[in-house]
Amino acid sequence: MDEKIGTKDRIINTAARLFQLQGYHATGLNQILRESNAPKGSLYYYFPKGKEELALECINLTNVFVEKTIRDSLAKIDDPVESIKNCIEEIVENLNSDKDEKLSIKSTKKVSVNLIALETYATNETLREACESAVNAWQNVYTEKLVQGGFNQEKAKSLGLVIQSMVEGAIVMSLTTKSDAPFLRIAEQIPHLLVH
Amino acid sequence: MDEKIGTKDRIINTAARLFQLQGYHATGLNQILRESNAPKGSLYYYFPKGKEELALECINLTNVFVEKTIRDSLAKIDDPVESIKNCIEEIVENLNSDKDEKLSIKSTKKVSVNLIALETYATNETLREACESAVNAWQNVYTEKLVQGGFNQEKAKSLGLVIQSMVEGAIVMSLTTKSDAPFLRIAEQIPHLLVH
Repeated sequence: MDEKIGTKDRIINTAARLFQLQGYHATGLNQILRESNAPKGSLYYYFPKGKEELALECINLTNVFVEKTIRDSLAKIDDPVESIKNCIEEIVENLNSDKDEKLSIKSTKKVSVNLIALETYATNETLREACESAVNAWQNVYTEKLVQGGFNQEKAKSLGLVIQSMVEGAIVMSLTTKSDAPFLRIAEQIPHLLVH
Repeated sequence: MDEKIGTKDRIINTAARLFQLQGYHATGLNQILRESNAPKGSLYYYFPKGKEELALECINLTNVFVEKTIRDSLAKIDDPVESIKNCIEEIVENLNSDKDEKLSIKSTKKVSVNLIALETYATNETLREACESAVNAWQNVYTEKLVQGGFNQEKAKSLGLVIQSMVEGAIVMSLTTKSDAPFLRIAEQIPHLLVH
């Protein structure tokens, strides 16, 4: 039983990493099996509907993981402005924490679903909806923190969406330009944005 | 001669659209040939090095096209804050201008290289560098406008990067959630951000 759980988890974690690093279309089931060290046949045993079913679990796993990461980070500091600024700085530290890894930790940690979202939004409504749930969940954590900090609900909702968009943009820009600057410049602007 | 130019341009425009809509890996050369109505053999005649060479031209075309779009938009209004706010609103209007098209104009217009950048940054340095040149060029147009409007060079450079990151994030969020809200909320925040 334990071994079964282990195999399924290994497959999901490997697939989540590969979908984020190289994309949904570039990642074949054989590579997932090989890199997760899973026995042949186990993929269709756990995911009888194939790659889409597996991708859905990967997106949901990333959803939960990233939400917890943001929530834990924001809980460290009471003040919403300081905590959100600090959270954005932590995301980029996290991205860089194993810079020497072969494929760069920038892509091996669960930080976003933006690649699979851009690949599938026009063609696969099931996966797009899962990605939408994920970005909404992350945005809501920022919004809640702002409400706790005294922002009114409407303003907090609007700013939560802006922060979530800035973080997604910083990920794209940071990976494209191999630089931390997008995150650092955005973090600097947080105090200007988050005004009651 | 004219016909040759026509075929090459058709191939590049079709490929740029498909790479942006469905991605680099999901787009095969046969689909590009078919949808661009190009004779078999013309692809390797114009792009002897194959898909990567074609993708490079697509990224460079998108670079020039989007830079001009931003520049023309910003030129309409003198005040940098109002012009950048208006430019962001125009990007989303542009994305929506043919909502009824089969695959949604959200992906058929040249607005970004973010999908191909995320797909290739870890594995193809040539394409990543071309994407980096593109996002840097776009960012610089915002920076120049801010400098013209009296911002000092350093501050303008930092804010240009923040604006470019926000736009990339809004594109990801807008496509993922099928909503204009990310662009509209970001545009609202521009006056708070762009303070001397």
